Amino acid sequence: MKKTINIGLLGLGTIGSGVYKVLAKHRLDYKRKLGSTLQLKKIAVRSKRKKRPVKVSASMLTTDPYSIVNDPEIDIVIELIGGTKPAKDLILKALNNKKHVVTANKEIMSQYGKELFEAANKNEVDLYFEASVGGGIPIIKPLKDSLSANSVANIMGIVNGTTNYILTKMTDEGWSYDQALAEAQAKGFAEANPQADVGGGDAASKIAILASIAFNSRVTKDAVFVEGITSVTDKDIDYAADMDHVIKLLAIAKNKGNELEVRVHPTMIKKEHPLAAVSGVFNAIFIEGDAVGEVMFFGQGAGSLPTASAVVSDCLEIAKNINQGVTGKRMVCTCYENRVVSPISQVESSYYLRMTVADQPGVLAKIAKIFGDKKVSIKSVIQKGPATKKSGRGILAELVFITHPVIEANLRGALKGIGKLELVDKINNVIRVESS
Amino acid sequence: MKKTINIGLLGLGTIGSGVYKVLAKHRLDYKRKLGSTLQLKKIAVRSKRKKRPVKVSASMLTTDPYSIVNDPEIDIVIELIGGTKPAKDLILKALNNKKHVVTANKEIMSQYGKELFEAANKNEVDLYFEASVGGGIPIIKPLKDSLSANSVANIMGIVNGTTNYILTKMTDEGWSYDQALAEAQAKGFAEANPQADVGGGDAASKIAILASIAFNSRVTKDAVFVEGITSVTDKDIDYAADMDHVIKLLAIAKNKGNELEVRVHPTMIKKEHPLAAVSGVFNAIFIEGDAVGEVMFFGQGAGSLPTASAVVSDCLEIAKNINQGVTGKRMVCTCYENRVVSPISQVESSYYLRMTVADQPGVLAKIAKIFGDKKVSIKSVIQKGPATKKSGRGILAELVFITHPVIEANLRGALKGIGKLELVDKINNVIRVESS
Repeated sequence: MKKTINIGLLGLGTIGSGVYKVLAKHRLDYKRKLGSTLQLKKIAVRSKRKKRPVKVSASMLTTDPYSIVNDPEIDIVIELIGGTKPAKDLILKALNNKKHVVTANKEIMSQYGKELFEAANKNEVDLYFEASVGGGIPIIKPLKDSLSANSVANIMGIVNGTTNYILTKMTDEGWSYDQALAEAQAKGFAEANPQADVGGGDAASKIAILASIAFNSRVTKDAVFVEGITSVTDKDIDYAADMDHVIKLLAIAKNKGNELEVRVHPTMIKKEHPLAAVSGVFNAIFIEGDAVGEVMFFGQGAGSLPTASAVVSDCLEIAKNINQGVTGKRMVCTCYENRVVSPISQVESSYYLRMTVADQPGVLAKIAKIFGDKKVSIKSVIQKGPATKKSGRGILAELVFITHPVIEANLRGALKGIGKLELVDKINNVIRVESS
Repeated sequence: MKKTINIGLLGLGTIGSGVYKVLAKHRLDYKRKLGSTLQLKKIAVRSKRKKRPVKVSASMLTTDPYSIVNDPEIDIVIELIGGTKPAKDLILKALNNKKHVVTANKEIMSQYGKELFEAANKNEVDLYFEASVGGGIPIIKPLKDSLSANSVANIMGIVNGTTNYILTKMTDEGWSYDQALAEAQAKGFAEANPQADVGGGDAASKIAILASIAFNSRVTKDAVFVEGITSVTDKDIDYAADMDHVIKLLAIAKNKGNELEVRVHPTMIKKEHPLAAVSGVFNAIFIEGDAVGEVMFFGQGAGSLPTASAVVSDCLEIAKNINQGVTGKRMVCTCYENRVVSPISQVESSYYLRMTVADQPGVLAKIAKIFGDKKVSIKSVIQKGPATKKSGRGILAELVFITHPVIEANLRGALKGIGKLELVDKINNVIRVESS
């Protein structure tokens, strides 16, 4: 039993401050649970003078993160700097110095997971990263341990709170995308530069991590197809509602045997689906396993204390491992398969298609012919709302199609042909539909 | 590394057959994950001749469960007999014979958890019981490990699929209680004698287990206040809907410092609450922690394969523990506190009260006076629907009150006084409301 387990913290921003608070508040509880004291020893910050939400003794602060990862007295390094530089180098140094690492860094885990696990394995130390997906929601460990009896068939997650907030406000309040984004920024849910969220990149990192665990095969972020929410309009949301669907930014991973599908895009799902009720900044991860059937994990996917919950729980696990002499053995890389991520062109999906066409007889026949030629089977078609007039094009009508499942390449081929039709003004939007 | 880990199975009913199937299907996957083979060696059944959903070689079957718990070659005993006799004795024998035990037995864990954990501890063996609550939903381990950084404030769970099915059908289809119960029985969701489900006893065992883990203090089933769903009528469900609430059988555990509240009863919750959308036989456990905020775990709370998912995942964890030499150390009793469960009379709650009164002036004033005398504060009152006539009592009207939070003893005192009023025909129902 190690009497004191020393922790070094890299970063004292939103999550770091939460970790500081949680460790301070529960110091005695943890001692009772573990027998050991979790001692926060040093904190690396960019500037010692910055105002922070927590009062930290100046003697604990350093501006040199390397003084932490090289400190022989530190047992666990918590990396909360974010980004890849210098975070990746710091994590590697810590592991190679035989320190255990807890990180919330999805970019690093989704790009360099293999390399980091190899370093942890070589040094027989722990690398925990529960906070990298879903904030405080327990998902990494339950997927690795509690669902380990299953072959996972698929994962669908709402893993980005910013975009879920925007889409929720567009759906429930009828706000425009710009209005919802501005409000998200005002509330601190979205960055001044919201690209990583609204562009889908953040969700792509997270689904890469989950897919790697669920399918026992390394999926890196760059293999994930990504489409953000910037092209979703209130019109699309209204059509979805008319068809008893909602639009969510889903991170999807499907097990197709030797091939995997891993993708992030706006998705129409039925209103009764458990994910449809997940609103605002909440996150949820829906998993189907061959034994367990459907399970869903729901909670706050970001924020200071929720994310700190995952980080500190990881520290408690590592402390247990230290005291039981099993570090480097419990949370290990399980990518013993070598599966390939299918290109999006080969992925099968249903689609919602919205287009503006000349309000003339014969248009539908021409479009339908192209769909037929490309083997795109139409499930339903709606023509709705008043026709509009556009100078030089005459009266225009809006057509909405829902397709049966079709290989994306075929759909794209059909849309290319349809886009060239003289009578078609514009293909306004294409959104994938998951109706299972 | 142990090459082969031998499993003995007690019981080959619904869950046992699922375990058999899952172990057979994933034999090679588990070998790749563990390095060891999970070998089902022997199965104890009541009769060898019974027809079963799985084809099992007769040589594996025995009618003597003690031949399994005493077999020196068996490493892990899976107990799926249910009930306390002889299951408890079998589990104790297995533990004392230095075998690890996996059980889905909520009765035993909620009544004899302390004794069993002591036996496991003494023998340095594992006792896992993920399947005892929420079927396949990962909840025991996430609560023990992934949320360990938190002080849990409260738990609210839909942990009985039968009653949730009945209440869902009453709500969505307008069925009567009897109709919904009959359908649940026809579908195999309810037993011929449904008392353990509809009476709330099954849920009481489960919340006792969850409360013990969440609050680090042993809560046994007999300390749980229980009220079943048999008195819930379609009228109550309609009133709830009018007020944007639904009625669910909730298992509730609240941390009030040195005192705990642990109870099972029909509960009105707001339609927007994440638990309100949990329908049919699905289960969900909603937890609030001081760091993580709100999290919810959702899935199939019963059934052959879902429950087998939890049982077999437990076996995989134990196999890891065996290979790493840490059996008896990972899933241990953490009841180091000694908290008291408050009697229901001292619990504070809001209430829905439905009563039939004489349709005469002055009735409300008399009732309101008694409420006031007993410090019951009324939040809203509704008089609705056509007045009915009852022989000997004249014209009757129905009154529905919603109270502000009040100590139950005060409410009961008020209701006693109100029940004695000449003008009050009947207090039809009293249902607790959780509006937080």
